[in-house]
Amino acid sequence: MSGSMRVMALLTLDPDRLFPVEASARALARDLYGGVKDLPIVSFHGHVDATVLAEDRPFVDPAALLVTPDHYVTRRLHAAGVALEDLGVRPVGGSATVADPRAVWATFCAHWPTLAGTATHLWLAHTLTELFDVSDEPAPDTAQGIYDHLASRLEAPEFRPRALARRFGVEVLATTDGPFDDLAAHTSLRGAAGSACRVIPTFRPDAVTDPSRVDWLGNLERLETVSSTSTSTYDGFLAALVEQRQRFRAQGAVATDHGHRTPRTVALGRGDAVRLFDRLRSAQAGPEDAELFRAHMLMEMARMSCDDGLVMQLHAGVVRDHDRPAAQRYGTDIGADFPAATSYTEALRPLLEAYGSDPGFTFVVYTVDEAAFGRELAPMASYYPALRLGSPWWFLDSPDAMRRCLSAAVESAGFSRFAGFVDDTRAFCSIPARHDMARRTLCAELARMALEGRFTPDAAHAIARDHCDALPRRVFRWGQGT
Amino acid sequence: MSGSMRVMALLTLDPDRLFPVEASARALARDLYGGVKDLPIVSFHGHVDATVLAEDRPFVDPAALLVTPDHYVTRRLHAAGVALEDLGVRPVGGSATVADPRAVWATFCAHWPTLAGTATHLWLAHTLTELFDVSDEPAPDTAQGIYDHLASRLEAPEFRPRALARRFGVEVLATTDGPFDDLAAHTSLRGAAGSACRVIPTFRPDAVTDPSRVDWLGNLERLETVSSTSTSTYDGFLAALVEQRQRFRAQGAVATDHGHRTPRTVALGRGDAVRLFDRLRSAQAGPEDAELFRAHMLMEMARMSCDDGLVMQLHAGVVRDHDRPAAQRYGTDIGADFPAATSYTEALRPLLEAYGSDPGFTFVVYTVDEAAFGRELAPMASYYPALRLGSPWWFLDSPDAMRRCLSAAVESAGFSRFAGFVDDTRAFCSIPARHDMARRTLCAELARMALEGRFTPDAAHAIARDHCDALPRRVFRWGQGT
Amino acid sequence: MSGSMRVMALLTLDPDRLFPVEASARALARDLYGGVKDLPIVSFHGHVDATVLAEDRPFVDPAALLVTPDHYVTRRLHAAGVALEDLGVRPVGGSATVADPRAVWATFCAHWPTLAGTATHLWLAHTLTELFDVSDEPAPDTAQGIYDHLASRLEAPEFRPRALARRFGVEVLATTDGPFDDLAAHTSLRGAAGSACRVIPTFRPDAVTDPSRVDWLGNLERLETVSSTSTSTYDGFLAALVEQRQRFRAQGAVATDHGHRTPRTVALGRGDAVRLFDRLRSAQAGPEDAELFRAHMLMEMARMSCDDGLVMQLHAGVVRDHDRPAAQRYGTDIGADFPAATSYTEALRPLLEAYGSDPGFTFVVYTVDEAAFGRELAPMASYYPALRLGSPWWFLDSPDAMRRCLSAAVESAGFSRFAGFVDDTRAFCSIPARHDMARRTLCAELARMALEGRFTPDAAHAIARDHCDALPRRVFRWGQGT
Repeated sequence: MSGSMRVMALLTLDPDRLFPVEASARALARDLYGGVKDLPIVSFHGHVDATVLAEDRPFVDPAALLVTPDHYVTRRLHAAGVALEDLGVRPVGGSATVADPRAVWATFCAHWPTLAGTATHLWLAHTLTELFDVSDEPAPDTAQGIYDHLASRLEAPEFRPRALARRFGVEVLATTDGPFDDLAAHTSLRGAAGSACRVIPTFRPDAVTDPSRVDWLGNLERLETVSSTSTSTYDGFLAALVEQRQRFRAQGAVATDHGHRTPRTVALGRGDAVRLFDRLRSAQAGPEDAELFRAHMLMEMARMSCDDGLVMQLHAGVVRDHDRPAAQRYGTDIGADFPAATSYTEALRPLLEAYGSDPGFTFVVYTVDEAAFGRELAPMASYYPALRLGSPWWFLDSPDAMRRCLSAAVESAGFSRFAGFVDDTRAFCSIPARHDMARRTLCAELARMALEGRFTPDAAHAIARDHCDALPRRVFRWGQGT
Repeated sequence: MSGSMRVMALLTLDPDRLFPVEASARALARDLYGGVKDLPIVSFHGHVDATVLAEDRPFVDPAALLVTPDHYVTRRLHAAGVALEDLGVRPVGGSATVADPRAVWATFCAHWPTLAGTATHLWLAHTLTELFDVSDEPAPDTAQGIYDHLASRLEAPEFRPRALARRFGVEVLATTDGPFDDLAAHTSLRGAAGSACRVIPTFRPDAVTDPSRVDWLGNLERLETVSSTSTSTYDGFLAALVEQRQRFRAQGAVATDHGHRTPRTVALGRGDAVRLFDRLRSAQAGPEDAELFRAHMLMEMARMSCDDGLVMQLHAGVVRDHDRPAAQRYGTDIGADFPAATSYTEALRPLLEAYGSDPGFTFVVYTVDEAAFGRELAPMASYYPALRLGSPWWFLDSPDAMRRCLSAAVESAGFSRFAGFVDDTRAFCSIPARHDMARRTLCAELARMALEGRFTPDAAHAIARDHCDALPRRVFRWGQGT
Repeated sequence: MSGSMRVMALLTLDPDRLFPVEASARALARDLYGGVKDLPIVSFHGHVDATVLAEDRPFVDPAALLVTPDHYVTRRLHAAGVALEDLGVRPVGGSATVADPRAVWATFCAHWPTLAGTATHLWLAHTLTELFDVSDEPAPDTAQGIYDHLASRLEAPEFRPRALARRFGVEVLATTDGPFDDLAAHTSLRGAAGSACRVIPTFRPDAVTDPSRVDWLGNLERLETVSSTSTSTYDGFLAALVEQRQRFRAQGAVATDHGHRTPRTVALGRGDAVRLFDRLRSAQAGPEDAELFRAHMLMEMARMSCDDGLVMQLHAGVVRDHDRPAAQRYGTDIGADFPAATSYTEALRPLLEAYGSDPGFTFVVYTVDEAAFGRELAPMASYYPALRLGSPWWFLDSPDAMRRCLSAAVESAGFSRFAGFVDDTRAFCSIPARHDMARRTLCAELARMALEGRFTPDAAHAIARDHCDALPRRVFRWGQGT
């Protein structure tokens, strides 16, 4: 990691980063952080591919690890005018050439300064320094040196996925899986030696609950092939879902997850639901029918959760694939999904009235609409026992945003109505950085509140530990006979 | 208050609570607070029952005083999984057994830690320590000791309602009353000796202006019985409202109040209004008619306020009784009312165009949508002389939320466009705690702004005193010939 | 500036104003500010009248300079109950008497305290002290002394518009001009000696792209008179717009600007567009047609920008002339324009899909909806290379609001996705005060972030300088062959 001809700017992490500037608050935040920084990582929502851990192969190269698959990074560099091909993103089905890893890495390093101020910048700085001992700041003239350094590390056994997971202190990591996924990777992981980290699937049935997907009918058939019932009738479809949920539970799943454009819920009677399902299957559906079906299926999923105990998670309010020409060319998850204003109060009412006070039901709602977090979700979570505040999501998973969300929710709902932090990441190496950021931010906010006399420093310590550890275990019922 | 077998955690109030952490800002905030903390309480909106003060009976027991009727508390404990019956909330019309006061109190104390961080926690800590000299933190093993202590206090003459109101320094307290309320308690209070505190009614006609109520027709009849005109015609209905407003004014009322789902206002011509009223009365109304009538009646109320000088208050944007099954079982005000996104700019336009610049009109608007407070209400209040910013309401009546609202509104509207703090509470004993919190928060924000060089500390002192005292008197025309 | 009989309150500016209170953050902010405070002013959006600089006449009097035309001031005094006539605002077409300048000034001074806390207060204090050496605080008994002092200054050559622009350090100032404006003032300024400041026009075609204007058909005719094509056909209309854009470019314009009620964009095929244009011209348009045409014309303007390189600016979300009776009496721009909730994600999708990744296109979007700034615009600007975050606008151009907007946007979009500060003012003398406030606020926020360890103080210096200087030049392509 030397040999460059000029003195490099050093890449360093401030040990007090993200703590308040004022000295007494900083001291207390540091103290609080000391009590939680080494707690194990329990993360009940994310997008790591289980096969990465199951196969435990070395990561291919620095670009493929840190740049190409991280849509937080590709998004920002696309905004800076970089073509996605130059970041290694391969056009769908195309034979188009993409840049080679060294070129991708050089492009990334050249644009490093434009990341300043973003959460991504802090995660990457954390990853590069803490994980890989990189000491130079990414820049055009450091790019190849850093690349070589990273590449050599990735060859070492201690940088294989399972070894990293151990190093990260990951106790449990939830993946997100389609309803007909065979969960082979999870199966193999359960039997694998040397995997201290527990990897559990999450049942995400969007492929069959969203009739607006072009592959919906095909997905129903795929669901049928893994089920013991036909999915050509509404009742059979529901039975197949119940059956697959059981299969996921048997594989260790503790939760379902639902990504919906809107949080709308509607309670249809069985007759109406049957007719709606048949209209949709026979391509005679009206323009509102797909949304109505999604809204109804959220109700059904809540009902099934009351029965089988899977925690229900909802991610709503994102316009996916906003740039349709780019989605056609590159597919999904390139960084072109954006939040829209979202209203939860009336939308969730049918579901919460029906199941929100059911002691067997837990409903974690994530939002990218910060205004709705404080205005709607926190008040409702301060009444309905089933409702939990999902950690600030996506564009809100950064220090200031998390602080604002805490501030906006705690005064009406208290700390115990949250669900704890989830890293929600596809970027495997960012897991410890993301949890570290969340813990620092929580401690910063707790320090401020304690010094404002809202509770004692001892209470702040207890809240910090609960938030990072016991709370998510309680909410996701982990270690309680699972 | 001793005798427990273990050392208790002490319940203490930081004398500098809610002031900024930074030392110079804290010192200035403390100084500013010193100038306002002992000012009398003038509170022109709230929900205390006048009969409590009229009858001046001892409070029944600690649970009935501090837990059961406070929907801020019941809401949070319901979220923690406690059945409302176990908090003493009695099902409607039912003979269901509810927990006895000691059990309610024990449940409350057991859940005390879950309130940490909430405004409710601070109000209760203030009440318990300042008012009742409780020194132990509520907990399972302190519950009965605290109960006994409180119960013995409640028997003492100085803990009767009027004595407390004197001790609180309440100069004037507004209640909220239906349009056919006989105001007997207010009448008796006016003649009562030993009541330094002035209790005035507020005219809240929702029962007759909202045709979607199941009891609307009955309410029209009740209105007729207290009026000299028939309410079976639109003109008679309006005349009855004018007459009842006069009756309230004669009883000391300075304001009306209107709780509407939306702030929509519509100016109907007399012919349209007559036809709408008749359609609604004859049960031939269309689905939009109730909302149209409410919107029209806000216009009529504004017009009447221009005539009779009653300040008009609007509380909009709350979905009441969100959990309808619970509302059926327990009735209203159990803590299941939640905010929804609310738009004021176009909604209030007809009313503000017609009356917003009328020198005889004052219109105080309260919102639970923080985004709208800064985006819409503050800009409009910085132009329309009639429009005043109601103090941040309900889920926004907490320190961080009030600070954010001040910050968001002051830069465009200045301090003088507010209406002053109102406690808006049903929880009688929380009155001083709520005003104290509002005063501390105001002083904290003024200290920050002054030290940022926006105005001098002297100006901050003047603004603080105006906000807590002269401003609400001016806005509600109190002590100006009333 | 002396002679009054009592000791006046001094009007002073804290040299550390708007910096954080905490000492280390204040020191760093001060240091950062030192690096940018003397940078030239490059302001690519505003409403100064070019004839003021072209004619370079002395300003008439203090009231006409600082009070009557500044709708931030008239708005606030109107809210305080002052009639607009008493601020010198002349009713439309009327022979109504308005107050004389001394009386206007006295009214303004009497209401000075009600401005405390507003951005306007700080701008005016800056202007009075820094520009005019006023040392007394405006008040009833200082009003005439200050007036005399200001009036005598305005007679001096160094207080003529061009001399002031030099003193302000204005390098380039963009005006906002209608599509048939002859730009005579701009022409004369280009040839004028002694005008170091470059004044450039901005093409704002709302008069012809918004068919809901009562004068739309007349505006089409006016457009035709300055163009070489007829505007009675859709193709001719478009050709005329292309031609006028070229005329503006030849006069130095670097940008267009569009003020729309909503940011809606729609891509109509040519046939639909022709039919829509014809319907609108023949007064057979449906109720949605005007909005549809505006939405379509935004697409056309973006397409033309891709061709001719003019940066496209959009100002959306304001309800103009909210108080229609007042607009009828006094005309526009009296301070009665108010923000409304605005959704950008779906509204801008057609435009961004079509042109958002075009390397020749730059699209600066301004919003008055703070929630949308962080929730929608920042995420989209972090992906689409064409999209830039316009500086927080109008009711958001104040210190706390700018800080919140920075905080909300930077964590997802970084600093480089902004477009730089624009003063957007009609109040010529407020230009340096507004830029100073923006620079101080930026430095305050950068200092906080740097001390929280997000980047180094050196990086903060670089970001500050880029933001105030190089960034707006890059975005508006200034000095790059222009």
